[in-house]
Amino acid sequence: MRKVVAEFIGTFTLVLLGCGTAMLTGCEQWGGYMLTAFAFGLTIVGMAYAVGNISGCHINPAVSLGCLISGRMSVKDFIGYVIAQCVGAFAGAGVLALLFDMSDKPDLTGGYGSNGLAGVRDSIGAGLIVEVLLTFIFVFVILGVTSPKQSHGSFGGVVIGFTLVLVHILGIGFTGTSVNPARSLGPAIVAAIDGNSKPIEVVWIFVVAPFIGAAIAAIAYKILEGKGDKEEA
Amino acid sequence: MRKVVAEFIGTFTLVLLGCGTAMLTGCEQWGGYMLTAFAFGLTIVGMAYAVGNISGCHINPAVSLGCLISGRMSVKDFIGYVIAQCVGAFAGAGVLALLFDMSDKPDLTGGYGSNGLAGVRDSIGAGLIVEVLLTFIFVFVILGVTSPKQSHGSFGGVVIGFTLVLVHILGIGFTGTSVNPARSLGPAIVAAIDGNSKPIEVVWIFVVAPFIGAAIAAIAYKILEGKGDKEEA
Amino acid sequence: MRKVVAEFIGTFTLVLLGCGTAMLTGCEQWGGYMLTAFAFGLTIVGMAYAVGNISGCHINPAVSLGCLISGRMSVKDFIGYVIAQCVGAFAGAGVLALLFDMSDKPDLTGGYGSNGLAGVRDSIGAGLIVEVLLTFIFVFVILGVTSPKQSHGSFGGVVIGFTLVLVHILGIGFTGTSVNPARSLGPAIVAAIDGNSKPIEVVWIFVVAPFIGAAIAAIAYKILEGKGDKEEA
Amino acid sequence: MRKVVAEFIGTFTLVLLGCGTAMLTGCEQWGGYMLTAFAFGLTIVGMAYAVGNISGCHINPAVSLGCLISGRMSVKDFIGYVIAQCVGAFAGAGVLALLFDMSDKPDLTGGYGSNGLAGVRDSIGAGLIVEVLLTFIFVFVILGVTSPKQSHGSFGGVVIGFTLVLVHILGIGFTGTSVNPARSLGPAIVAAIDGNSKPIEVVWIFVVAPFIGAAIAAIAYKILEGKGDKEEA
Repeated sequence: MRKVVAEFIGTFTLVLLGCGTAMLTGCEQWGGYMLTAFAFGLTIVGMAYAVGNISGCHINPAVSLGCLISGRMSVKDFIGYVIAQCVGAFAGAGVLALLFDMSDKPDLTGGYGSNGLAGVRDSIGAGLIVEVLLTFIFVFVILGVTSPKQSHGSFGGVVIGFTLVLVHILGIGFTGTSVNPARSLGPAIVAAIDGNSKPIEVVWIFVVAPFIGAAIAAIAYKILEGKGDKEEA
Repeated sequence: MRKVVAEFIGTFTLVLLGCGTAMLTGCEQWGGYMLTAFAFGLTIVGMAYAVGNISGCHINPAVSLGCLISGRMSVKDFIGYVIAQCVGAFAGAGVLALLFDMSDKPDLTGGYGSNGLAGVRDSIGAGLIVEVLLTFIFVFVILGVTSPKQSHGSFGGVVIGFTLVLVHILGIGFTGTSVNPARSLGPAIVAAIDGNSKPIEVVWIFVVAPFIGAAIAAIAYKILEGKGDKEEA
Repeated sequence: MRKVVAEFIGTFTLVLLGCGTAMLTGCEQWGGYMLTAFAFGLTIVGMAYAVGNISGCHINPAVSLGCLISGRMSVKDFIGYVIAQCVGAFAGAGVLALLFDMSDKPDLTGGYGSNGLAGVRDSIGAGLIVEVLLTFIFVFVILGVTSPKQSHGSFGGVVIGFTLVLVHILGIGFTGTSVNPARSLGPAIVAAIDGNSKPIEVVWIFVVAPFIGAAIAAIAYKILEGKGDKEEA
Repeated sequence: MRKVVAEFIGTFTLVLLGCGTAMLTGCEQWGGYMLTAFAFGLTIVGMAYAVGNISGCHINPAVSLGCLISGRMSVKDFIGYVIAQCVGAFAGAGVLALLFDMSDKPDLTGGYGSNGLAGVRDSIGAGLIVEVLLTFIFVFVILGVTSPKQSHGSFGGVVIGFTLVLVHILGIGFTGTSVNPARSLGPAIVAAIDGNSKPIEVVWIFVVAPFIGAAIAAIAYKILEGKGDKEEA
């Protein structure tokens, strides 16, 4: 129970601060773009140390899938995590709707910071490639830095957070960067409730592609790590 | 005595560099905005390692309240800390007044970097929600990363500093981000002395809301951490 | 074999995210410039912890040369590493070509983020000096922080990544910053295939100068470190 | 001898990359401003791990003075360090002169990134206050994080580097931020050779004020740290 609450709080915070910054700045070139990338990444930095020892701080169904495939979590835990993450993301987007409304502030993304294909001229193929590649990189780093065969101790949170900054730097311009099905679903649902159904129509891309990227990362990392323990080059 | 001097120096520095950067850049979109966020956050990074082993480097009454509720400090220490923090913040704002005057430089915030409701169209409710949420997140991370049940060693300062950058990234656009009653009081008092009473009229929001957010974080973290010591997910 | 795959993935990612960000932003002043610097540097941060324990995460022939001269790797490994790095960089540039084409997005660098002399008014001398100096600094820091005589543990990846951000901050304005022959060759070859032969004509500078800078760094560090182990100043 | 070579290389790099970035960007608002702050700070991050175990990586006479007063270095070493630092800074500025000339690139600061009083409307008093305060903060953090009574291990370099970013964030707009007599002297001398004597006329401020700030920091830290070893708050 403590674990799912931790995942709820973490994913709630990720959407609140990450998508909120996107709504506030519109990812304007290039300072707003950078602020958005840092908002997502630094949430991971903070939350990894706040709840990392409780739930592992996945706050992302794709990361949980990577852990599941890598044999680091049970199917039962996986299901509980994913539900908590999606509910947290929905709650985060809901608070943003309330907050921007109360403040009479414009949502510069027009869709609660949800992901879309505007940056790739509606090319589904390009969207899928971007999200598979970025999630592969993100989950590959997570599995590496947290591998029990390595010994990076408390470095994980900082490294994973900066890697999320990194994948946003390239990805915002293309898809807004999801790499996280829950982070995409929450704002898309709130946007749909608000009468904007465009994000929800393409949200499947941001569910399917991150899962594929994470699965490839888990398999690739397993093969790559092999039996070698802590070899030095 | 050493502890209160440490808290004084830390909070003085926080207001001098954080509010000073806001005054200098006006938090202009979006580079000045980012500079201001980093100025506040990196002050925590520096001061955490300079005086962290002396006073714990709270430099924020809301953080001290979180520690008090979590049973990590005494009521007597709490009172001394809060006084030192408020005096330090006032001194920092006073030096900024002197410095901008001597340099004949405009204060682009018009109020020594004090917090206000301009970003939320004077909605007190929105201001309270923003500050409660951001302080909750900030103090929740602090309690997690410094929990004696965890073992993040010297990572605390870096993580807490980056989390302060983070809550500024979203919050500057709404309230200027307080999450710290002392940081709000100091500039508001100096602005009032200078004939601008607007900040002091709303300063209660930036005292009450951070305290509420910190209290919720302390209670939430206590429940969440429970008796589990260093479980790995 | 695992090592060369690790080097392939790392260099692929470096070009994909670093050169991709350059193409996307055109290194526009000054936010796009900073995003590009961070994209290159944070790739090192991520990859260092993902594959560092497998291959050492050189993902740069100049770094491998520095390690070879420092007696930290064999000639056989060096050759395998360099081939994997060049193939990875070529693959990364190839995916960028596909991705920008599918997305119908302009390449604002006009050459897949390849390096050139436009920033130094076609002065080969200036280009050589910049690249020798920046690679010297980069490899000098790498050899220092990873020296077995020092004991910086897991700090290496973060420090090396931030140093790559650093050398990009000065160098983008001059040569685009290579300090990495593979990172220059990959995009130059893809540009040539695409009909733009300008990058490939000057690519020798970005092969020769990084190797010279790395060699000087290796020799300088060896002399400087001497026999002294962990002296404190 | 190894120590002075290390200090030479470090200070050379600091001026080359820090002042070079200022020349390149003119510290334009606000991206160029941030790039310059990061260039100075990240040089410390890199060099601290490259030569920290050799010389302590002061690369700043004010830091060396702080260490001297704190009883952490001998007078003889102090003199050698300061000479190496000044020669390194001069060499760095000299290479910048050569490089910008060869590249036919404008120096947007007009004085090789030297410090001045333009940002404080020629107020010597304001310039002195800014530099004393910022150097106090910088050296205070250095003495804290590296204190043998604390146990922050390898965190020093990252913390000190980010603190240098921090003091630049406020200070660039006032004095350009020196906090380092060598960093000011080198470019001022090269500018004077080049026919621009303005920087050298005010350089005494950037020698005197950092020394005063460092001395106050050393005394304050000594008193504050007292005999208490590793008390926790």
